[in-house]
Amino acid sequence: MANQADVIVVGAGLSGLSAAKLLHEKGIEVLVLEARDRVGGRTFTEHNPKVKYVDLGGAYVGPTQNRILRLADEFGIETYLTNEVEDVIFYTKGKSKRFTGTFPPMGSFLAYMDMNNLFRLIDQMGEEIPMEAPWNAPKAKEWDSMTVKEFLDKNVWTAAAKAFATCFVQVNVTSEPYEVSLLWLLWYVKCAGGSMRIYSTTNGGQERKFVGGSQQISKRIAEKLGKEKVILSCPVCHIKQNGNDATIKDLHGNTYMAKYVIMSVPVPLQNRIVYEPPLPANRNQLIQRMPMGSVIKTFMYYDTPFWRKDGFCGSSAIDDEGAIIGFTMDNVNPDGSCPALMGFILADKARTLSVLSRDERKQRIGELYAKVFKSDQAKHPKHYEELNWPAEQWSGGCYTTMMPPGFLTKFGSELRKSVGKMYFAGTETATEWSGYMEGAVQAGERSAREVMAEMGKLSASEIWQREPENKQVKSSPFPSTFMNRHLPSVPGFFGLLGSVGILSAGVLAAVLYQRHFR
Amino acid sequence: MANQADVIVVGAGLSGLSAAKLLHEKGIEVLVLEARDRVGGRTFTEHNPKVKYVDLGGAYVGPTQNRILRLADEFGIETYLTNEVEDVIFYTKGKSKRFTGTFPPMGSFLAYMDMNNLFRLIDQMGEEIPMEAPWNAPKAKEWDSMTVKEFLDKNVWTAAAKAFATCFVQVNVTSEPYEVSLLWLLWYVKCAGGSMRIYSTTNGGQERKFVGGSQQISKRIAEKLGKEKVILSCPVCHIKQNGNDATIKDLHGNTYMAKYVIMSVPVPLQNRIVYEPPLPANRNQLIQRMPMGSVIKTFMYYDTPFWRKDGFCGSSAIDDEGAIIGFTMDNVNPDGSCPALMGFILADKARTLSVLSRDERKQRIGELYAKVFKSDQAKHPKHYEELNWPAEQWSGGCYTTMMPPGFLTKFGSELRKSVGKMYFAGTETATEWSGYMEGAVQAGERSAREVMAEMGKLSASEIWQREPENKQVKSSPFPSTFMNRHLPSVPGFFGLLGSVGILSAGVLAAVLYQRHFR
Repeated sequence: MANQADVIVVGAGLSGLSAAKLLHEKGIEVLVLEARDRVGGRTFTEHNPKVKYVDLGGAYVGPTQNRILRLADEFGIETYLTNEVEDVIFYTKGKSKRFTGTFPPMGSFLAYMDMNNLFRLIDQMGEEIPMEAPWNAPKAKEWDSMTVKEFLDKNVWTAAAKAFATCFVQVNVTSEPYEVSLLWLLWYVKCAGGSMRIYSTTNGGQERKFVGGSQQISKRIAEKLGKEKVILSCPVCHIKQNGNDATIKDLHGNTYMAKYVIMSVPVPLQNRIVYEPPLPANRNQLIQRMPMGSVIKTFMYYDTPFWRKDGFCGSSAIDDEGAIIGFTMDNVNPDGSCPALMGFILADKARTLSVLSRDERKQRIGELYAKVFKSDQAKHPKHYEELNWPAEQWSGGCYTTMMPPGFLTKFGSELRKSVGKMYFAGTETATEWSGYMEGAVQAGERSAREVMAEMGKLSASEIWQREPENKQVKSSPFPSTFMNRHLPSVPGFFGLLGSVGILSAGVLAAVLYQRHFR
Repeated sequence: MANQADVIVVGAGLSGLSAAKLLHEKGIEVLVLEARDRVGGRTFTEHNPKVKYVDLGGAYVGPTQNRILRLADEFGIETYLTNEVEDVIFYTKGKSKRFTGTFPPMGSFLAYMDMNNLFRLIDQMGEEIPMEAPWNAPKAKEWDSMTVKEFLDKNVWTAAAKAFATCFVQVNVTSEPYEVSLLWLLWYVKCAGGSMRIYSTTNGGQERKFVGGSQQISKRIAEKLGKEKVILSCPVCHIKQNGNDATIKDLHGNTYMAKYVIMSVPVPLQNRIVYEPPLPANRNQLIQRMPMGSVIKTFMYYDTPFWRKDGFCGSSAIDDEGAIIGFTMDNVNPDGSCPALMGFILADKARTLSVLSRDERKQRIGELYAKVFKSDQAKHPKHYEELNWPAEQWSGGCYTTMMPPGFLTKFGSELRKSVGKMYFAGTETATEWSGYMEGAVQAGERSAREVMAEMGKLSASEIWQREPENKQVKSSPFPSTFMNRHLPSVPGFFGLLGSVGILSAGVLAAVLYQRHFR
């Protein structure tokens, strides 16, 4: 019967499809139910003559993301480097500062010391957090009772470092520092390999994109499964378990049956389903408490990649309350066609500016880019693309869920806990690169192996598997200099000075003044 | 046609029914769709021979809650006083301290000064917050970027005051201080008339209960509407608007049509419905960001109200990390039958202890009450009742939603903003006693008048209406003494001392020691 399978996967995003693929390869009958009329979830590649193709959703991959790279290899999908040949820009106080590398130079030695200390601290604290169980970190409760803003207020002394740290949070998790739990952010950065790996282009999370777009991977998996195994436009609204099997109903009244269910829709959308029996109390509350981040992904298409001519690679971090975009990257197609700048409208700005019209956003972006890239050409795009992810009913936002203070220590351990015969996939349940395509694949395959273990087809110890490094896309360690390791924090520095002379009090006062009044 | 009406109300809780009642009285055809097999939502009165009746959900009413009292009067439902004749208990450091009145005495003058300052501050800050638009408060952004814990850490100096303040937050909003936005808590307390009104029994929110239970009001409204107008066991899963009317589908595939929709289910459950067209971006994200609080309401039934004999009224606030219950009240029926102690398992404890069995919870409660009320009789209840609200699929938790940092300033203004022909009720959308039965009625009636205004049956200026004071249940102002108004804060006090002598530094050091190490 067509509506019956060993395993039903709810959600044909990358995670659900990765689960289905693995089960299918092991000869287990699987059926994937998808609410949208397409596969891919938060990966979505638009095709039209103006752009040829463009990833309006998840796009970037890099070293250590070996699972998604393995899938791409399997389907013969190649990657190409994000352009970072020319200079990067840090736009702050209305000026574009050029730099190369990952983190921008700070205006003063104090600010440099401050930023060095901050990211060293973030990575050191991350070392105390178990990726698979962050709630077990020795200071889990303390760090989870604190917002990232509170942490920055306590540990960052200069306005310049704080401004950049805020950009870092917004661009990495599409939320504001005052919305998210410190424990969660530390864990999230750690799962991505640390502050350098997560934020870097070269040797980091943004190193590459897929030639032809990221959605191809989902499409190719769906093809492999076969058309009749991936049912589109079928929003699941009811899951009933009786101990032996599960009966699933969609919004059109169709019924499906399976022995196991893999739930692979974004956590807040799991609230869209009625469960029988009802979910356990903590899971019933968990799905109310992990909202999706807020981002509008935009692309401005130009006649030429004018920024390159001027020695800019296209990457910029923008620190400006009034600026619509927080972060840009070059988006010229690998064949050199369709030059564009990708830009993110992030966190609170995505909320405030989602009420503007598409054309108003386009115009504001052009005006901003003219300042950031110092060229009036920026004001004259020949084409514009955007996707407002918070308006997407079947994603709820992007890139991923965030966790507010108090969540991880009280609800975190429920995230992957099966409910009857229902198992949980989705990048939010990953322990490596959670929130990324890599995490989606890790979580999907892990959930498939959980089901196989339950079926007696593999042992429990085989559920979690390491992934060998990709042959083409290799990671290098990030060099840490003697300076990086030993430079004191700002208060540490004045402590040192203090042992030299009373002078420091006056300087410290000046810093405090700068900190609070600038 | 039975499945058609001018207005369809989704949710037969007190708010939805209040809306339906008002529309019905104005001759407007209304249909109420309810997911559960009963009306009343978060008001639920259990009937059985052991208890006669007991409110396992919302129960308390008091002065200034004039709308819910008006409805009760209309149906001839009487109120009776919560017992507060004998002493109240503040159980802290393993000891029960007796007191009378609202706030417990602190152990030292410093702590007294500290608590006086804290609640004065909460009320003063509340004065700057417009009830109908808290996001417009002059310091909205600053206060919304901060958790209540952060605020307490900065403004409370003594361990005793901080312990009580934590109890205050937990019992009023069933969440932890580190989970919730300061702006939201200040607004919530203000909407309830201030810190004294919200927390008091006599002259406050807990002054009375309904003879026969609070669910009666919903039942009587439903009777008045008529059986065929309130459709039970009909979870709405799809709302389609075409500009002129709305087509609503339930989980069983039934279809209903109306010109207007009043949405009156708890905010996170609005995520359970598929909308066509999809919700605007900010509302799509709003419904992911307002989770329900966490509370298990418990009742221990005894042969006699033994606590009264010993001079305790039954009310207690319990400050103890290991204690299962945070707050108790006497629950003897108004005819003197079925003596019981009501106790709340609050916030994080509701999450941790929801995995225990019902019997384990009962036993732990008995052991705790034996200590708090100093009587071994507490260990021998003859009956136990509880309701674990976080496990309720159709409420999601209790008493109400909470707002995490950053929510109110960015999403708050969307709360009552209609979407096409869909209007919003629910106690969370109220501006007086939000989170309470009173707020449910205010919001329901306001939403009904919004629809009537849209129908041209009343003017926009009539949508918001004041409610005259109830004839029986009258409020008095809370007296504020010269001391209360003029006593300094702890640092203020040492500032004063400082002008007297250098002595203060040593004392301040001692306080700081106590603050950080106790």
